[in-house]
Amino acid sequence: MSTTTTSTYTVTGMTCGHCVSSVTEEIAKLDGVTAVDVDLASGQVTIESTTPLDDDAVADAVDEAGYAVSP
Amino acid sequence: MSTTTTSTYTVTGMTCGHCVSSVTEEIAKLDGVTAVDVDLASGQVTIESTTPLDDDAVADAVDEAGYAVSP
Repeated sequence: MSTTTTSTYTVTGMTCGHCVSSVTEEIAKLDGVTAVDVDLASGQVTIESTTPLDDDAVADAVDEAGYAVSP
Repeated sequence: MSTTTTSTYTVTGMTCGHCVSSVTEEIAKLDGVTAVDVDLASGQVTIESTTPLDDDAVADAVDEAGYAVSP
């Protein structure tokens, strides 16, 4: 059986398309992630994955890109 | 004899360090350019070159990066 988990986070500090690309790239590296969608205006990041995501891992990926997950 | 020409332009639309990098990279490709300094807050771009720069070429480079030179 195949299931997809959809998770949403709010990321602060993104100001342009390059920021969106950076965040997308870092999150896409996480195990099991199959899709990442970032809305620049709202900061909402929607992630689809084959397994539930670890919040800390997502926060680390966003931090790696230079931004922060809003608590 | 070696001379250096210093030119300054104001670029609008840059919002983050990625924008600065894009503008810097495109301008650095221009013939004769030896240094590019971008101040994100003011949008001021200072360029050093071995020959006087062509304003249109600079504008094209900035446009290529996705931004605009302020008239």
